[in-house]
Amino acid sequence: MSEISRDARKTLDLFRLRADTPGTKNRNHLNNAGAALMPSTVIDAVTGYLSREGEIGGYEAAAEAYSLLEGTYDSLATFVNCDRDEIAIAENATIAWQRAFYSLSFGPGDRILTASAEFAANYVAFLQVAKRTGVSIEVIPNDASGVLDPDALAKMIDDRVRLIAVTWIPTNGGLMNPAAAIGRIARENGILYLLDACQAAGQISIDVDALGCDILTATGRKFLRAPRGTGFMYMRKSVLEKIEPAMIDLYGAPWTGPDRYELRPDARRFETWEKNYSVRLGLRAAVDYALDIGLENIEARCYHLSSKLREGLRGMRAVSVHDLGAPLASIISFTVNGWDSPAVMAYLSGKGINVSVSPPSSTPVDAYMRQLPPVVRASPHYYNTEEEIDAFLDAIAGIAS
Amino acid sequence: MSEISRDARKTLDLFRLRADTPGTKNRNHLNNAGAALMPSTVIDAVTGYLSREGEIGGYEAAAEAYSLLEGTYDSLATFVNCDRDEIAIAENATIAWQRAFYSLSFGPGDRILTASAEFAANYVAFLQVAKRTGVSIEVIPNDASGVLDPDALAKMIDDRVRLIAVTWIPTNGGLMNPAAAIGRIARENGILYLLDACQAAGQISIDVDALGCDILTATGRKFLRAPRGTGFMYMRKSVLEKIEPAMIDLYGAPWTGPDRYELRPDARRFETWEKNYSVRLGLRAAVDYALDIGLENIEARCYHLSSKLREGLRGMRAVSVHDLGAPLASIISFTVNGWDSPAVMAYLSGKGINVSVSPPSSTPVDAYMRQLPPVVRASPHYYNTEEEIDAFLDAIAGIAS
Repeated sequence: MSEISRDARKTLDLFRLRADTPGTKNRNHLNNAGAALMPSTVIDAVTGYLSREGEIGGYEAAAEAYSLLEGTYDSLATFVNCDRDEIAIAENATIAWQRAFYSLSFGPGDRILTASAEFAANYVAFLQVAKRTGVSIEVIPNDASGVLDPDALAKMIDDRVRLIAVTWIPTNGGLMNPAAAIGRIARENGILYLLDACQAAGQISIDVDALGCDILTATGRKFLRAPRGTGFMYMRKSVLEKIEPAMIDLYGAPWTGPDRYELRPDARRFETWEKNYSVRLGLRAAVDYALDIGLENIEARCYHLSSKLREGLRGMRAVSVHDLGAPLASIISFTVNGWDSPAVMAYLSGKGINVSVSPPSSTPVDAYMRQLPPVVRASPHYYNTEEEIDAFLDAIAGIAS
Repeated sequence: MSEISRDARKTLDLFRLRADTPGTKNRNHLNNAGAALMPSTVIDAVTGYLSREGEIGGYEAAAEAYSLLEGTYDSLATFVNCDRDEIAIAENATIAWQRAFYSLSFGPGDRILTASAEFAANYVAFLQVAKRTGVSIEVIPNDASGVLDPDALAKMIDDRVRLIAVTWIPTNGGLMNPAAAIGRIARENGILYLLDACQAAGQISIDVDALGCDILTATGRKFLRAPRGTGFMYMRKSVLEKIEPAMIDLYGAPWTGPDRYELRPDARRFETWEKNYSVRLGLRAAVDYALDIGLENIEARCYHLSSKLREGLRGMRAVSVHDLGAPLASIISFTVNGWDSPAVMAYLSGKGINVSVSPPSSTPVDAYMRQLPPVVRASPHYYNTEEEIDAFLDAIAGIAS
């Protein structure tokens, strides 16, 4: 990683990247795992399209921008390395994930295997479907370092496992689950594999073939720097052809005759006819912007900055860093002795530093197993500077003495 | 109506309303049943908030705007006359409708009663749930004028009717189903009543108590003049308390302990945690703008302009107006002899006049029963002028000779 990291620091034009990002003038934004600062090109794509809707009408603007809007599918397909027909755009990642997950069939005795650090939105959905169908929800054990253990997963496989559903990078820390190793086991055993890539999208490279996942969902607003109100789903063609969405409308399933409808042949069977076109152009702009910088460069710089931040915290006696495993993602979770996490967040905010707090309820199994309190979550992105990391560390050092 | 109409023409400051609406400078916009022109206050609410997200971060902007954002629920509650806890905001009307409808339980022998002019999105959902559960879908007969017949509905009621689900004003014409009369029958018989108010919201007054509906869903983008990407649901408190959403996440159903979640007590149990806050502020601005003008004024002027337009078309021998019933809404559907409807739309577009085409597949039962071709749909709003209606009629007269 250090080789790439050096290359990246050479090639990234930080001055331009920050000039592209109005928020860098106002804040030391270390809350990219919450919502990153949008670059101007993203904001302009959304607001420009909204103005155009105001000028000529919503349907008329959509007709005019048809090719641009369709290009969003091409950009996303390039972004995750799939066919454009395997992409559905959603109103957010939860809606994308729900449309996939709730369309699957389960019965008593079936098994869903998941990770201990699964996102709470997914976990309560598991609980609901378990109550409804009798499927059992089982947590895949972690290895000694706290990362999901592929060997333990392999031992759990039997012919009742219907789904492996895992969050790649959880919301409450730098842990990175071995998504590709899980994919190999899923592929070998012909088990459906649903990967939640919310914190991965825009931070590290995504290649659905290399990952071996059947379904991947992500949000736009986090490291991808797209507007809120955007998410997407990749679904492998051979899989989507066999899945009827849990809910349909006239776009995903056009009426074809008395008492008949026909599902679209592509992943858009999971979409609705009504769409917010403005944010789709923002999503496209964000994906193109990330692709232009290069995900390998983004990943390397995120690794560099987050390592610096984490090491700085680890050197403070009154600070506990809660991240598990290695390598680690650009999310650092920590607590400060004698301080409630919301108070740390408020204190930092007063110094113009943005972070967030991850409560136990956002990753319930992991938080319960590790008896985690609410943790402060700092999450630098490639456009942050080393000086910003130092300022953050100085601020924490000031209260952690 | 003519009394109110005269009053309305006195009170509406058309000059200001048009100055508020940038699109009126560029287009003769008669496509308000598709997507209305947003007023500047709506566009500014969205773009201003997006800029703020860009300046200080997404989570940080949401915290700053908390009260404003919460006010959207109050505005919508005033708009439909309910409690704020009975409002859920959705990403569009289809998502709102789906979240309600798919959360209901049906079994073999159960009956869903619907209207002949039901929107196709709803209708394919009925077909899917019929296939899944064995519930039967039955169309309520119309009276001689083509409007849903409440007496016929009353005769269909038995103890297997689980749901009356009706589109108030259909997408393909000026028909107005007798929503309140349906509500009285639903109430008398204790039957759940789901009203699709997409074309009503922003065009006519909505009072859920007077309507007697249990659930009402609508979109923002049509007559309400809100941004695309907005919709909402009203659900009566006594009803929502008994309904577990078909899909949940950590917002609607927070995790409360090992293998437990608890549904929110309010209608937001149907929402997801991830939200597009910018368009919610646009929705609020649109609702407040409509309330400020007064729905009775809007309704009267829509009636006045649409009557003028419809009568003008009815006077042309080569034009067929396809609207059924009386009173009629501000949607006029027609065909021109010898012209395909898309060609009429393109011809009008060349003259700066926006209309849309409603294909049979958007209202399948009605289109099938009446053997309707694709129809041109003109839909004036209160900000249109009499001169614009004349210009439209002149254009049609030019080809309908």
